[in-house]
Amino acid sequence: MIAVIKKDATRQQIDNLVNWFSKQGLTVNESQGDYCTVLGLIGDTSGVDIDLLQGLDIIETVTRITDSFKQVNKKFQPEATIVDIGGVKIGGGNFAVIAGPSSVESEEQIMMAAQMAKAGGANILQGGTFKSRTSPYDFQGLHEEGIKLLVQAGKSVNLPVVTEILSVEQLPLFDDVDALQIGARNMQNYELLKALGKSNKPVILKRGQSATIKELLMSAEYIMSEGNENIILCERGIRTYETYTKNTFDISAIPTLKELTHLPVIADPSQATGRANLVKKMAMAAVVAGSDGLEIDIHPNPEQAKSDAAQTITGATFNDVMDAVSKTRSIL
Amino acid sequence: MIAVIKKDATRQQIDNLVNWFSKQGLTVNESQGDYCTVLGLIGDTSGVDIDLLQGLDIIETVTRITDSFKQVNKKFQPEATIVDIGGVKIGGGNFAVIAGPSSVESEEQIMMAAQMAKAGGANILQGGTFKSRTSPYDFQGLHEEGIKLLVQAGKSVNLPVVTEILSVEQLPLFDDVDALQIGARNMQNYELLKALGKSNKPVILKRGQSATIKELLMSAEYIMSEGNENIILCERGIRTYETYTKNTFDISAIPTLKELTHLPVIADPSQATGRANLVKKMAMAAVVAGSDGLEIDIHPNPEQAKSDAAQTITGATFNDVMDAVSKTRSIL
Amino acid sequence: MIAVIKKDATRQQIDNLVNWFSKQGLTVNESQGDYCTVLGLIGDTSGVDIDLLQGLDIIETVTRITDSFKQVNKKFQPEATIVDIGGVKIGGGNFAVIAGPSSVESEEQIMMAAQMAKAGGANILQGGTFKSRTSPYDFQGLHEEGIKLLVQAGKSVNLPVVTEILSVEQLPLFDDVDALQIGARNMQNYELLKALGKSNKPVILKRGQSATIKELLMSAEYIMSEGNENIILCERGIRTYETYTKNTFDISAIPTLKELTHLPVIADPSQATGRANLVKKMAMAAVVAGSDGLEIDIHPNPEQAKSDAAQTITGATFNDVMDAVSKTRSIL
Amino acid sequence: MIAVIKKDATRQQIDNLVNWFSKQGLTVNESQGDYCTVLGLIGDTSGVDIDLLQGLDIIETVTRITDSFKQVNKKFQPEATIVDIGGVKIGGGNFAVIAGPSSVESEEQIMMAAQMAKAGGANILQGGTFKSRTSPYDFQGLHEEGIKLLVQAGKSVNLPVVTEILSVEQLPLFDDVDALQIGARNMQNYELLKALGKSNKPVILKRGQSATIKELLMSAEYIMSEGNENIILCERGIRTYETYTKNTFDISAIPTLKELTHLPVIADPSQATGRANLVKKMAMAAVVAGSDGLEIDIHPNPEQAKSDAAQTITGATFNDVMDAVSKTRSIL
Repeated sequence: MIAVIKKDATRQQIDNLVNWFSKQGLTVNESQGDYCTVLGLIGDTSGVDIDLLQGLDIIETVTRITDSFKQVNKKFQPEATIVDIGGVKIGGGNFAVIAGPSSVESEEQIMMAAQMAKAGGANILQGGTFKSRTSPYDFQGLHEEGIKLLVQAGKSVNLPVVTEILSVEQLPLFDDVDALQIGARNMQNYELLKALGKSNKPVILKRGQSATIKELLMSAEYIMSEGNENIILCERGIRTYETYTKNTFDISAIPTLKELTHLPVIADPSQATGRANLVKKMAMAAVVAGSDGLEIDIHPNPEQAKSDAAQTITGATFNDVMDAVSKTRSIL
Repeated sequence: MIAVIKKDATRQQIDNLVNWFSKQGLTVNESQGDYCTVLGLIGDTSGVDIDLLQGLDIIETVTRITDSFKQVNKKFQPEATIVDIGGVKIGGGNFAVIAGPSSVESEEQIMMAAQMAKAGGANILQGGTFKSRTSPYDFQGLHEEGIKLLVQAGKSVNLPVVTEILSVEQLPLFDDVDALQIGARNMQNYELLKALGKSNKPVILKRGQSATIKELLMSAEYIMSEGNENIILCERGIRTYETYTKNTFDISAIPTLKELTHLPVIADPSQATGRANLVKKMAMAAVVAGSDGLEIDIHPNPEQAKSDAAQTITGATFNDVMDAVSKTRSIL
Repeated sequence: MIAVIKKDATRQQIDNLVNWFSKQGLTVNESQGDYCTVLGLIGDTSGVDIDLLQGLDIIETVTRITDSFKQVNKKFQPEATIVDIGGVKIGGGNFAVIAGPSSVESEEQIMMAAQMAKAGGANILQGGTFKSRTSPYDFQGLHEEGIKLLVQAGKSVNLPVVTEILSVEQLPLFDDVDALQIGARNMQNYELLKALGKSNKPVILKRGQSATIKELLMSAEYIMSEGNENIILCERGIRTYETYTKNTFDISAIPTLKELTHLPVIADPSQATGRANLVKKMAMAAVVAGSDGLEIDIHPNPEQAKSDAAQTITGATFNDVMDAVSKTRSIL
Repeated sequence: MIAVIKKDATRQQIDNLVNWFSKQGLTVNESQGDYCTVLGLIGDTSGVDIDLLQGLDIIETVTRITDSFKQVNKKFQPEATIVDIGGVKIGGGNFAVIAGPSSVESEEQIMMAAQMAKAGGANILQGGTFKSRTSPYDFQGLHEEGIKLLVQAGKSVNLPVVTEILSVEQLPLFDDVDALQIGARNMQNYELLKALGKSNKPVILKRGQSATIKELLMSAEYIMSEGNENIILCERGIRTYETYTKNTFDISAIPTLKELTHLPVIADPSQATGRANLVKKMAMAAVVAGSDGLEIDIHPNPEQAKSDAAQTITGATFNDVMDAVSKTRSIL
């Protein structure tokens, strides 16, 4: 960590600060510039609050040199983490596709979607059971009943299942589910992150709609620091000024994350664009960018989907996407 | 709601769609353009999922004409809502200042902060007890002990108290607190919104860091649709490309919100900029923009604050800010 | 175009508005809703100023149904435009790679870069001669001398050349250059767009750093409406809150643009991310997304490049990128 | 400037870099950390290209400590610059209001607008003559004829006049105009900045729609480094994800700019929000934030304004705004 001291700081003020750092176990290296004094802080600075330093009158700027994420950091654990979801491996060279409807709507619908997922070659079945909707008047999911139907559908086609959890107290309901997803709106719901950190279920952590890459890693750090290292990160588009697509797919976040962390990284081309006709090309782009997997919204009848209809594709299109993905993977 | 149909849609497809709308109780008004057909939907469209429509092959665009927020909508309830927090009124001409430290850190600290708040003329005491921090290694708050100290400090200076809740299961801990705050990271934590909607505590709902004005209103709608109408909206800065300030204070959101909703609207100049030296001017700006109140971070010793140090002001500065606020209010 | 009239508008006001539209040659279709009246405007509305309508007291919202871009619109000219740059075709199935240094720095440097471009299989040589730099103290380019060196280097390896123009009065200097580029900062420099519209040189129009897809198309419309239809659009990253990369590569803009316009669309993976180590993966991603070409910064010695060093790759890396691009194209 | 060297850099590589810095006249201070080596560069680093350093293999990060803007920097010239526009002073305690129509449309219109401006108490008359419009089919201004009418209108009410210049070659047309404006789209049109830097006309430089505060200052540096220090900076809203307002008024940019530069800073509440009904409150907010002046769109008949109708106010509203501004200034 580098602290730049203002020109008009007194010797006494600087000495006080240096002492304070020393008490925290840090070695301080001081150098004089024309317009400022620079303090280089050596040692474990992950506990030093950068906001606190920036609040000091005598400080001009503070820059963190070492990353504040540790357990998820590739520097400290270079080997790729492989996450196992009900026997399906993701990461470290293992590629997996998660497919299913945005919402579980009925037994018939989820059974058909499961068969479509299986037929297309998906490895894991998804289905929303507690939905996070902008409007309280929109469909909120089938809840416990939805979980039951999802688990049953997964069994029928022999695929593990994943669904989204919205709140800590729902945790006991998900015993039969193979992995839990934390949606974009809850990426910084730290109580939920900590609760999943204490469980041993694999977690798919989606990037918040205005979360930086580093904030996504810090949220993963919340889970991992509680003991659970079965974490998959998911790029699903970010909010920008462009409104033509629902979100802006931050494709370069995929190789960037893989440079910074040992955790697997997947992409959600459905959510990232909000447009069914872009899913195929964006799925292929995610693959060449180094994604360890994909999450894709499919539905027997997208036009009647109760949520995310505009980004949902049919079984036939899914087959086509999977062919393209497979062809794309062949060149890597 | 206006649905624009693509040029190449068949008569049969359009008729099917019109029938489907009719079954939902809507009257449909059709008009032909050169490049498209336009359907005007008349009736209560708040239950129609706009994503679903956009997913249809034959649809070019859909525009919602009537607002999707209803209970919080000024059109349907023109009279300003006045929220009462422990005897202090906010809204409908009533202005209130909430002040206190970002975190309750110790008995001594919160007692001193409470006295500073009272001395400066604040109406309500705030203090963080469960903290939402980007890093799991940063100070997380004193939890139950913090609540106890906050309540005691409030009593000692005869001010009602407010603190932030992070998760549904924490709710029983806050019985003695006069109002609950939902922070930016939880603005779309719908389970929490619904839980507070069922309680009768006043709620301060902070705008998410990339939430639109309409999404903020929809989150308020979640609370209000469960029965609790004691809601105060708080503009606290949004995330933009500009990094000089912590957030970008969206000052025009204040009069815009007041145009759209009957709920009181306050501003948090501390969080909105992240810089102590901007608090005074931004507080004054919020006042002239029509804010019903302010939320300001104060601390006996900002340099040692365990969170948000850079945006926290001293008692002396707070007195100065309050003088400026009072002078500013005199011209309205 | 759809205009929604406020509930409290009088019959007289509505009639006045309808008359005004009629005088502009538009047919007006009126329908009544519960909360509003809706006017559907039929005819050529491209000359109607949407801001003007939104300024009217009685108007609630206005939505444009037909696109405001016409000549660049695929609806009106479905066949793909093929642009010819010194014998190299781009668009309509023709793929081309433009490579070269961000700045022409010396005869030796641009000759070496030209050989690297040629060796790797690039089709067109680029080199900056008038540089658009944030700081007046940064290298501003070699100007006329740079153009001379670039043209000479292009000839020596038998590649056409492209360079950026910053201002209308520079136009005569570029006679020997095969195509002109308009950089992101000048995407809405309409005088420059109009001047190039009157020339017959091919134009590479880069997306502004916060331009929407529609604004990019409108800027192309400025050029085309003056008579020059040799326009190539270039996605080069947009400005967002994420600071890890220099820009956020809006990969889905590529297929979106190709859906909306007949003009060729290329991508600049160097500028889009600002990081040399991301160029290869982003180039491949652009290819699968449907890009008609690529623009890549190369330099004999990137570490000494006078501009954009961090995003510039060596000849060896360029060969590797070109192999990957070629392999990627083989699956399409 | 602080350069952090990667852990795996060799001694030889570091020595080479240190030598290279020394040759540029910089003193280098080296310190060793656990994970990296830190080089502190002392001396004039304004000529060092930060991108070039970031491109080096052995560099982890580079941070600029001293600002890259110099002539506009308050540190080096603490006294406020006062700009004189035809006898009207702005800055250093002098407050001025610039008002007029977005476009000069006819003699009658600009004469009426001039009288409205004068009557309300404006100090300077504005009027667009070369318009920068997103669509080539929108009204582009009256050009030379517009300049003539504007100058004449200014004389008739004894107010100096300002209008926008779009391109270097237009400069000779503006001889009779008292000040020139550079619009948001041209903030980084460096050829134009340099041309105005060589003239002696006062310049109003508007912030680009996605320009950072530092980029705005660097653009002013372009003008000032050519010799013209009569520069006024104008905050006019930035582009964000929020679409309710045309732009997001970055109110805290006003005090921030005044902290960083000696140049006067004004605000444009019309452009910043795009909504006539927000102008009054935003004008008052700009005043309390420390603005040295305001720019406001007025028109005898806003509903018929040929550009920016939605944000334009009438003479009566302007009088009301000016009263509010005057009352607000009285408390400072």
